[in-house]
Amino acid sequence: MPSDSTQPTPSDGLVTTQRLDRAREVTAELGLDTVVVTPGADLRYLCGYAAHALERLTALVVPATGAPLLVVPRLEAPMVAASPAGALGLELVAWDETDDPFALVASELRARLGRDPQALAVGARTWAEHALGLQRAASGARLELATPVLDRLRVVKSDAEVAELATAAAAIDRVHARMGEWLRVGRTEAEVGADVAAAILAEGHVAVDFVIVGSGPNGASPHHELSDRVVQAGDLVVVDIGGELASGYRSDCTRTYAVGGAPDAATAEWYGVLQAAQDAARAAVAPGVTAEQVDAFARDAITAAGWGEQFLHRTGHGIGLDTHEAPYVVAGNTTPLEPGMAFSVEPGIYLAGRHGARIEDIVVCTPDGARTLNEGPRDLVELPG
Amino acid sequence: MPSDSTQPTPSDGLVTTQRLDRAREVTAELGLDTVVVTPGADLRYLCGYAAHALERLTALVVPATGAPLLVVPRLEAPMVAASPAGALGLELVAWDETDDPFALVASELRARLGRDPQALAVGARTWAEHALGLQRAASGARLELATPVLDRLRVVKSDAEVAELATAAAAIDRVHARMGEWLRVGRTEAEVGADVAAAILAEGHVAVDFVIVGSGPNGASPHHELSDRVVQAGDLVVVDIGGELASGYRSDCTRTYAVGGAPDAATAEWYGVLQAAQDAARAAVAPGVTAEQVDAFARDAITAAGWGEQFLHRTGHGIGLDTHEAPYVVAGNTTPLEPGMAFSVEPGIYLAGRHGARIEDIVVCTPDGARTLNEGPRDLVELPG
Repeated sequence: MPSDSTQPTPSDGLVTTQRLDRAREVTAELGLDTVVVTPGADLRYLCGYAAHALERLTALVVPATGAPLLVVPRLEAPMVAASPAGALGLELVAWDETDDPFALVASELRARLGRDPQALAVGARTWAEHALGLQRAASGARLELATPVLDRLRVVKSDAEVAELATAAAAIDRVHARMGEWLRVGRTEAEVGADVAAAILAEGHVAVDFVIVGSGPNGASPHHELSDRVVQAGDLVVVDIGGELASGYRSDCTRTYAVGGAPDAATAEWYGVLQAAQDAARAAVAPGVTAEQVDAFARDAITAAGWGEQFLHRTGHGIGLDTHEAPYVVAGNTTPLEPGMAFSVEPGIYLAGRHGARIEDIVVCTPDGARTLNEGPRDLVELPG
Repeated sequence: MPSDSTQPTPSDGLVTTQRLDRAREVTAELGLDTVVVTPGADLRYLCGYAAHALERLTALVVPATGAPLLVVPRLEAPMVAASPAGALGLELVAWDETDDPFALVASELRARLGRDPQALAVGARTWAEHALGLQRAASGARLELATPVLDRLRVVKSDAEVAELATAAAAIDRVHARMGEWLRVGRTEAEVGADVAAAILAEGHVAVDFVIVGSGPNGASPHHELSDRVVQAGDLVVVDIGGELASGYRSDCTRTYAVGGAPDAATAEWYGVLQAAQDAARAAVAPGVTAEQVDAFARDAITAAGWGEQFLHRTGHGIGLDTHEAPYVVAGNTTPLEPGMAFSVEPGIYLAGRHGARIEDIVVCTPDGARTLNEGPRDLVELPG
């Protein structure tokens, strides 16, 4: 089989049959009937197959009893064999262009369970047309989410996964360290963003996930991406960037830059509030502390300084094979942190019509507290312009 | 509001309130209760908002009675206003980080319908976690697919949409015309692919959708992408590439190259069978001809020459804001073609262990037959190596 350079081999310690075995254990433990995941991080996590999400059904089916199987369009079967999934001894069922893949899955499930499946637990990001197609073929089995199984597995990272996240963090840190090459007065956000995107690839990622360059008032819109606005002397610029390694693990790091002039004292003080809040939230990370408590540490510090209403979003999100995954660092999430959980800590303060600032690092919970994977300076970074 | 250079303005004739009005008409005509679409081509088609698909719910809700509304995370509200959706007069409902967006949608729907919704017709690519979250909040309303509404609207392209597809086709044709700069003996598929990806952007796309460089035996796997295989003298190389314009419309074109040496007579004859089949299928396109008949024209020609078993896939797929969408050119699809339908015609013949060949053009059905948007030569293109 031809090799595929974009996929890791099983020997990297990331994709092993242990993940599939564990998925079956948890599926049984939670009393679920069948778990079905489709292309995306769930599929890649469980079997190492980094398939494109397309209309033809590709599905990993994990029944409560009997062997799991991977259902794929026949024309993509060679790609499975060339991926880490090809080395797992997983049963492969290929379907032809005029077959009904949903009926095929239902039939295979009946053979394994000895009855119609009562419920199908589908991946959170499985498309409705696939979930509803499977449900119809399985005589109207109840649809539910496989999130309890997948989150249980994916939320705590192995040492090999943490190593990948650290590699990704170092790569995105190198991009931030070069920001002065591109982020200059007189250039548009779009021009800066194109250079940053190229650098994300040059510094070790295989794909760009997103590039946010929010200059001046655009920085007050947290998810603003790029525009034709020209960077002005004295602008604050929020730069939030991320990419994907060959292994699928992600980077995500935000720094705020002061371009073409030092900030005035009031802005420096305001930024200092944000920096102290981000430090406090990272310092709060420890096993047993809940996700919402970490959010509260950042929020309380910002609220105490009078900017609570301007901190428009949660403090963070988990990261791994998806840029956003469990655990979400948000009020209401009472999940206690465990060693190996990896997530962003990214408070921001947004002043509509003026500017914004955000500081984001990826941290991993360890028995001794937070290990911060990003290492670049968290100060307001002054660039000459 | 800051402008966003990656989104078209309503004045380009692509995004107008007519699409939303038509969606409501068809929803009522089909007896559907409520249509809900989430980020992706459906959302962009209906209101011009090119949102990222993320875990926070963004949804355009079109009830059978009452005004449609766009539900978005509050921190992304400025992006809606900056997009074409901001000019449509669409009601915007923003939710905060600790709100339940599903309950919000259900409540808004009850207010419009005067009762609980009986059914929710969701976009084909809506994520299961969103579809099931909405269903739960709407007291267990029946889930179904909104495909009948969205396909009815999206499958026939307007003149403005055809113009975008023609622009995209011309851009990808320019990349193929330059293939000799990169596709040479001694280079790996991955090296070639990186150069091709850069050229896809340089020639007018804002994003690369996919790059397939299947050299020698890798060309026999239709969806093979890139590997570290080094191109050899005498290789046939299948190059299937596509990108996305700023407007969201897509290109997709395949050519097969003979690198470093003319093909032998048997290979030339074999390729001639493919080229005749592709010509025949394009020539068959006309209003009233069914999608499966177009597939049969290509398939019958290849089968008659003895290669039917080696034509592993359907003949084509619709294209627009998605690279793959209705109409699918496949046995079993009895949809009669109508003027404005746009789709690929891409037969291929794959010889396992040796090589493959595929020819792909985007065509639009017109009252007078097919208009082929791609204009590059369809011969086996010889490159010096």
